[in-house]
Formats: sequence, C-alpha cells, structure tokens
Amino acid sequence: MTQPLVTLLTDFGLEDGYVAAMKGVLATQAPDARVVDICHQIPPQDVRRGGFVWASAVPFFPPGTIHVAVVDPGVGSRRRILAAEAGGSLYLVPDNGILGLVLKRKEVRRVVCVGRGANFLEPLSSTFHGRDIFAPAAAYLARGGELQGLGNAVRRYAWLSAVRPSRRSLPGGRLRVKGEVLYVDRFGNALTNLVLDPSVALEELHCGELSFTSLAVTYASVPKGRPLVLVNSAGHLEVALRDGSVAERYGIEVGAPVVALWRR
Amino acid sequence: MTQPLVTLLTDFGLEDGYVAAMKGVLATQAPDARVVDICHQIPPQDVRRGGFVWASAVPFFPPGTIHVAVVDPGVGSRRRILAAEAGGSLYLVPDNGILGLVLKRKEVRRVVCVGRGANFLEPLSSTFHGRDIFAPAAAYLARGGELQGLGNAVRRYAWLSAVRPSRRSLPGGRLRVKGEVLYVDRFGNALTNLVLDPSVALEELHCGELSFTSLAVTYASVPKGRPLVLVNSAGHLEVALRDGSVAERYGIEVGAPVVALWRR
Amino acid sequence: MTQPLVTLLTDFGLEDGYVAAMKGVLATQAPDARVVDICHQIPPQDVRRGGFVWASAVPFFPPGTIHVAVVDPGVGSRRRILAAEAGGSLYLVPDNGILGLVLKRKEVRRVVCVGRGANFLEPLSSTFHGRDIFAPAAAYLARGGELQGLGNAVRRYAWLSAVRPSRRSLPGGRLRVKGEVLYVDRFGNALTNLVLDPSVALEELHCGELSFTSLAVTYASVPKGRPLVLVNSAGHLEVALRDGSVAERYGIEVGAPVVALWRR
Repeated sequence: MTQPLVTLLTDFGLEDGYVAAMKGVLATQAPDARVVDICHQIPPQDVRRGGFVWASAVPFFPPGTIHVAVVDPGVGSRRRILAAEAGGSLYLVPDNGILGLVLKRKEVRRVVCVGRGANFLEPLSSTFHGRDIFAPAAAYLARGGELQGLGNAVRRYAWLSAVRPSRRSLPGGRLRVKGEVLYVDRFGNALTNLVLDPSVALEELHCGELSFTSLAVTYASVPKGRPLVLVNSAGHLEVALRDGSVAERYGIEVGAPVVALWRR
Repeated sequence: MTQPLVTLLTDFGLEDGYVAAMKGVLATQAPDARVVDICHQIPPQDVRRGGFVWASAVPFFPPGTIHVAVVDPGVGSRRRILAAEAGGSLYLVPDNGILGLVLKRKEVRRVVCVGRGANFLEPLSSTFHGRDIFAPAAAYLARGGELQGLGNAVRRYAWLSAVRPSRRSLPGGRLRVKGEVLYVDRFGNALTNLVLDPSVALEELHCGELSFTSLAVTYASVPKGRPLVLVNSAGHLEVALRDGSVAERYGIEVGAPVVALWRR
Repeated sequence: MTQPLVTLLTDFGLEDGYVAAMKGVLATQAPDARVVDICHQIPPQDVRRGGFVWASAVPFFPPGTIHVAVVDPGVGSRRRILAAEAGGSLYLVPDNGILGLVLKRKEVRRVVCVGRGANFLEPLSSTFHGRDIFAPAAAYLARGGELQGLGNAVRRYAWLSAVRPSRRSLPGGRLRVKGEVLYVDRFGNALTNLVLDPSVALEELHCGELSFTSLAVTYASVPKGRPLVLVNSAGHLEVALRDGSVAERYGIEVGAPVVALWRR
C-alpha cells in the first residue's frame, strides 16, 4: 500500500514553529502519512494569492492526496471548516471560498462541515486551528477515515471565482479582451487572466506602458533585457522580461489592467 | 516498525546548502529516518528565539522523536555537545542552555556529552558541527543506538530559563504582574510571557501605548485594524491586531514591558 | 529495498507553487521516491551560485541519489537537458555547465541528452521544463530506469569550472596567491577560492581593508566583533567575523580580490 500523501498550504511563513507544530500533530496521529509542502509564504490572510499558488500545484498530485489549505483570516470566529471530495482527492479548507480557486463546481462531489470524529487537540485554541483542527482532520483522512465521519454534509458554502476577462466583438471578426494581472511571481513575471483560445490569434496586447504585437515562444526567444508576452505553463498569457523582473522594471502590480486584441 | 523521526532546528537559513548537507549525512547514515524541518530561519546565533520556536513545535511530535537543534555561536570552541533523554524523546544540542527553553528540569532523565560512538565526519571541521557531529549522532540514535554509546553522563550543563514575570499583591485581592514581549511572529503578533491562571481575571493590560480592559476570544472578535489581547495557542497572553501587524503599527519589539492587573 | 532518493536544487524560490508542482509530478510518477530539498533560493538564473550551493551538499548524499538542478536561464530554447552518471549517482541538469561546478571531469561516466523514454508532461510548456521534463525524467530514474533510456549519449557539453587562483613564486620560497571571494553565505561569511595546501603555511592574507597574519581555528577563537580568517568546512579559506557579518561590516562582495602570501 502506498503511503497517504498530505499537502500543506499556509500563510504561516517559515520563521516560526507553526508549520512544524502541524507536522508534529500529523506525525503523531498519522505516522504513515507523507507530508509535502505546497507553500507557506502566502502573504498573511491573502486568500486569493493562496488560491492561485494552490491551483498551480494541486493538479499535479495524484488522486487520493489530502490537500490542506490554512489561509484563514476568520480563525476562531464562527466560520466553518470544510472537508470536500473532488476528482478522487480530498480538501480541507476554511469556508472562505478558496476551494473555488482550485476546483470547478462540477468536480465537487461532497462537502461536509468538519465538527467531529477526529482527535482534535484539547483544549482547542481559538487562534491556531491549523494545529488543533486541520492537522487532526487530515490525519483522520490519512488513516483512511471517511469524509462523512468528520461532519454533516453542507450544500451552501463560500466560493471565490477567478476574475474573468471581459470580451467585446469589434468589426472585422476581431475581439477586444480586457483582463488584469492576477499574480506576480518570484521572477517578477506578471501572470494575467487572459487565456488564448486556439481559434484566435493575438494581434496586440497592452499592459501598463508595454505593447506587444506578437507572442514569444519562451523567455529566451528575445534578447536579454527585453520584455515579451508568452503563453505560460498554466496556459495563461504572461508578461515577462528576458533575464529580469518585468514587474519591477515597469512597475506592474497585481490588478494592473491588460488589454488585448485578437482575431479569429 | 515505524520510521525513526528526526527534527531539525537551525540558524542556517534556506539560501545555502548547509541544511541539505546535514540531510545528506542523515540519508547516508540512517536511510530509514524521516527528517522534518522545525525551522531554519532562526536569526544567526539567537539561542533564545531558537528555543522559543523549538518549544512551540517540539511538544506536538510523538515520543521517540530525535530533536536536533543547531543554534551554536560556540561551534568549534570547547563548548560541549549534549544528548539528552526526556519524556521518551531524544535531544541533541550545543551546551548553551537551549534545552531549558523546551524542557522542564524534572523531565530530563539522562544527559551525556557527545564524544564517541557515532560515525563523525573526518576530517572534522571546526566550523560545521551540524554536518560533522550532530547529523552523525542523530543518525546513530535513529538507527537505535543507546544514548550512553555517545559519551559519558554529565550532571552539570547550561540551562536557560524563560523570563518570568514579577508579581506584586495590591489591596483588594488584586495582582500587578509585570512581564515582557518574548517573541514577535510573522504576523506581527507580540507574544508575552504572561500566563493567565484560571483563578484570576484580567482587569487591565498595558503594552507600549496600548491599553486593554478585556480579553478577545480570537483575532476576528474585533473589527479590522483594531488591536486586541487574547490567550494564544500556547496559553500566553498575546497582543495582536485584527488583519495586521501590531508590532509594526505600534513599534512593539521583543523585550517591551507588559504590565497587567488581575483580580482573583 | 531502500527508497530512491531525489534531491532538488532550483531558483524557483519558496513563494510560488513551482517547486510543489515538481513534487506533485514526482509523487504521481514515482510514488516511492523520497524528495529532499537542497535549496530553492538560488538567485534567479545565477548558475554559478547554484553550482556552489549544490557542491556544498551533493557530496554528502549516498551513492545512487538522483540529483536534479533546475537553474535554467535557457528554458524553452534549444539548450539541451542532460542526464549524467558519476560516482554511482545520477544528475539531471540543463546543458549550461553547472555539472562542472559539482563534479570532476574524470568522475563523469556517461552523459545522455534527455529526449525520450520518460512520461514528459503534455502539452509540453516552453517555460516550465522543471515540471514537464526534469520531474518526469527524475521519476523515470527513480523507478529504476536506465540512463540510456532517456536519450542518446553526448560527448560534448557545457562545463563551467570553479575560478582558479593564480600563483607566483617569490624569493625565499614564498608564494603569492591571488584569488577571489566566491560566495557570501547567510551569516555574511566570505568564502574564497583559496585552498591551503598542507605543505604551506599562511603568512599574510588581504581582503578589502582587512589583513590577517594568522589563521583562526574557529569563529569562537577571536573576541566578539573581530574579523578572522579560517579554513572552512569545505577546506577553503574563509573570511568571517565573530558573531556578525564580515560582508556587511566591511563591504565584501562576491568577486572581491583576496591576496595571500604563503611559505613552504
């Protein structure tokens, strides 16, 4: 039998002992589980950025993985904790909508409100549910526990959606698409919410002071120090700079508008 | 049989290859051991902060775990390296007192001075005992080696204690308690050394320019941007800010005095 | 049978989901492999620093380890990906010379150009070969696949060498050796490319405004706040400061010249 796999995404950072406390609980309650870090450097309480990072990694894990996300501004309040099943994997999340950033609605098979069944830590703190509730619930699932053992099914829960670009048809079969920068990564690449459908071709793209009339294949397609736009590894249009940070050089930030013209 | 579990706490950071060199030695000398990182971002040589982070995670690991802490300003000098047994777990530390920040004296069952028995790396460097002594000693213990195989028992060793608050009785059954900020975490929360005994109630708390007359249950108990004081996940009083950094906003640093009045 | 061991070195950082996506592919395609992080904080595209960090950790892993390095300014261009065998371990690298910073030429037994045989991700992105090619190739090797299954042997490939110091003989059997600072670590220690041969003794060493006429045994050999030079854990001369950063205090950077006089 393969070892159960648990992934962790948090905004706990790497300077404190918080992530390790969760791993200690997992090692105690599910000694066979293997734990893989997705990311712990999500800016505090930034659910949207957390969801974006989560979505860039979760689809590459095998079915049966238990994915735990603790980016949780509402910890200790009455916000619920949810356990969900989708595509053969399991998800533990605060009920703040983050699930919608990594799954499609139709993929979700079951959602329960976590409230029983696992060895929650006692006394339960009101500030560290990652350690006291999420880790024990993940351990319970890693030991093979059933989702419904954690609580009752719920039908309504929070659901954030990725920001969608707007489209407007122009004369001559052209399309004007207006989106925005969703994410700036470590390299300073600006990932947008524009996805280039195979039936269309890019004619122009504008982001801040930058304009492009063609797509690069990869970063190395242009000379060093030159800006470019390409289809990135997630299938999105991305504005970048060969061997440098486009975000820093051109002052591009999350939320910056991106306008494209494309032709069928 | 479960895999032996080794945890690592260091001030080596994550930008260099030092932690990985230790993991390479462990993988070579104890291939079955599972290694879990507690934290490697302890500020260089900050034994007290290291001990605080260590204490926030170590108690959540199962008995039998081998906990290794290398925050070691005295590396290569005549300071000793200790191996200790307490509560069914094992500890490898420089003899600089860090053990006292995670254990109670009465929990310690045996302490030896590490000097033999393990496959220490040769030639032994005078600057990287984490790789050359700590990792081989941890591997020896992970392979099931006995503590006394590592060296002779010692009775005297360094022991740092957590800073204790002072208490003064006031008329009318009230108590004036004076402590300090022990730690500022990634979220900018200021963790104090005050522990609210169940027999008393908080009347007032002052920290810098902030004053409180009641305890919040959790961060989300107050409006966004408002300061609060609560009992944190370690049972200590903690000064925080809803969705922000109290340390940054109010200039609160480690060592800042905290004064409370409480009533029986 | 022991679990196959895969190590990862990248410049992907820890703020995004890139490293986790690679780990997801490995968990899917080689569920038994154990993954150990060498470092992910290599400054973007800094192949030389990446090689230095790699070389400080790789030699401590057991033979049979699969070492993957993705510091890859040429991703998506025609640069090749290589798989090499040396000293009983396997290496996956972009063909940018990084192999030369961790191996000696005579250690290399076989090198192939990665192009077939593994479950590369489809559609193949042009910007994230770490996930789409390196991770599947590592998984193939971790499952016991033969090197030649990944592609044809190549005889010419890029090879960076460590910067060598120059030596000049002086009257009286003395030697003037001129090298440079190769690396500044997290503690602010300046690691040089000078190696003190056992047949010689250090007479003088100059680095920036600092001059030394003797070697310290370890950091704690000098009073706090004092600069020193010692033989570090890799056998190189290293300029340091007791309990502080010599690089910051004296403005020493990578590439700074270091001049030594030594006598046979």
